[in-house]
Amino acid sequence: MIIGDMQRKRNFGLEKVKRAIEIHNGTTLLATGITGDDARLALAAVKAGAKLLEPNHPAVALARGHKGVTSMHAAEEIRHEIEFSEMCKVVKGVRAVVGNEIYITAGIPGSFTEVLPTPFTEQMAYELSRAGADGVHTHKSTYEDLIDVVDICHKNGLLVDAYIAHPSDRHLFGIPAKSPGEVAEAARRMEEIGVDLIGLMTGMSYEGVAAGDIPQVIKERLQALISNVSVPTLAEGGINAVNYKAFIGTGVNILVVGTAFDDIARKAVEETVSIFLKK
Amino acid sequence: MIIGDMQRKRNFGLEKVKRAIEIHNGTTLLATGITGDDARLALAAVKAGAKLLEPNHPAVALARGHKGVTSMHAAEEIRHEIEFSEMCKVVKGVRAVVGNEIYITAGIPGSFTEVLPTPFTEQMAYELSRAGADGVHTHKSTYEDLIDVVDICHKNGLLVDAYIAHPSDRHLFGIPAKSPGEVAEAARRMEEIGVDLIGLMTGMSYEGVAAGDIPQVIKERLQALISNVSVPTLAEGGINAVNYKAFIGTGVNILVVGTAFDDIARKAVEETVSIFLKK
Repeated sequence: MIIGDMQRKRNFGLEKVKRAIEIHNGTTLLATGITGDDARLALAAVKAGAKLLEPNHPAVALARGHKGVTSMHAAEEIRHEIEFSEMCKVVKGVRAVVGNEIYITAGIPGSFTEVLPTPFTEQMAYELSRAGADGVHTHKSTYEDLIDVVDICHKNGLLVDAYIAHPSDRHLFGIPAKSPGEVAEAARRMEEIGVDLIGLMTGMSYEGVAAGDIPQVIKERLQALISNVSVPTLAEGGINAVNYKAFIGTGVNILVVGTAFDDIARKAVEETVSIFLKK
Repeated sequence: MIIGDMQRKRNFGLEKVKRAIEIHNGTTLLATGITGDDARLALAAVKAGAKLLEPNHPAVALARGHKGVTSMHAAEEIRHEIEFSEMCKVVKGVRAVVGNEIYITAGIPGSFTEVLPTPFTEQMAYELSRAGADGVHTHKSTYEDLIDVVDICHKNGLLVDAYIAHPSDRHLFGIPAKSPGEVAEAARRMEEIGVDLIGLMTGMSYEGVAAGDIPQVIKERLQALISNVSVPTLAEGGINAVNYKAFIGTGVNILVVGTAFDDIARKAVEETVSIFLKK
């Protein structure tokens, strides 16, 4: 009874993404980290032109000081402990502040590669969709799980962004594929499954390097993704205000940036505290 | 049975405050706004030297996008809707990240001047204290209510910082007192009641001005506070990285700074988003 309605909801979401890519001349930004989950800084990102936001559960673990974690690496270890209801509240709050024209894709417990039984259920997709999400940010590393997630999300009007990882990544954030040929194959299969946006993990998560340090093989893998699918493409992991230019040249549609925002907000706070205390 | 224990807990809290004042040569910082409630930026403030933090419910309303509010003025109107349990979670998370040496005073529904029945109960003081707070940040505007708050807080090992306001302030954030003489009288009475830290509202909340624009009467009112009490003193409202020097000259012990941190974090995010999108 709601198949058509939910197809329509997904179309609206995809239109937001495509418009952002167009407005930003082929490569737009998916702002995450502190700009994804703190309504104050999400609004700041939007005021500066960001059209796509990604609240996610490991970043919320950091925001809430859950178990005292202070690094994204540590947050990834306990991210499944963040309550799903908390993520719905975050999505609802950010949506209330940024309005309906902004695309919101949310990472939630169950949408990443999990090491404990952490289901992503139909009811969760329903609630997340009603909380205001356009999509789900997923990091599943098997096709079986990805197929399930896509099915559940689509039924509830949610788009799915999913990723291709390198098998030797510290955190497995997607379908493993090493060579450009393997990436091309994974990308085509993900598109067949119905993934709406397909990304490549750079393997540099939380550890941005300078543009000149980005290995050629990352660019080749990214090229393999871009040239083999027709859906919007993303690059995620360690992208910052210095190295992002190395990615724009590849023609990727969306740069996912989180830690770089956390870092600059921290630096701004540290500098201002120092002013008050050094007098 | 716990009167002695709780007196001891309060002594530990006051020692943290006094040590911070001493370390910072007579005037230290109480960091609030985004540095009070977001564990990522609370830790950044602490790393830069801040020893006192203040999570509060209007700032959390902004952080969570509650009812879509985007300004502190609007947040003040709906702050009582933030759940007390949410404030306990914030205190617990910030404490987990910054450690026990940092002084945390929390603003919670019921501790400010309320326009709807918003009780601050014994059970709340108990839970907040166990969540990790050293004190309660209060903005009561009658002595009756302040006496109750002090009693409940002290029984549960919490210190109380309370404020003197100007009767014509947009938001009434304390005991109203206009002239320096009235301020002196209020300050003495608050100390008698048992308030542990006494502050003056500048009347410039959320609207910082340049140092040269700070009216002489604010300095005279602040002087009246400082010279009439022996407890640590605070100044709150519109203090930023430009005008703070006007306050240091007065000998006030603690500058309460929130909006200035929100503003610089927002600005840093906006600038970085612009870099990505302007290429």
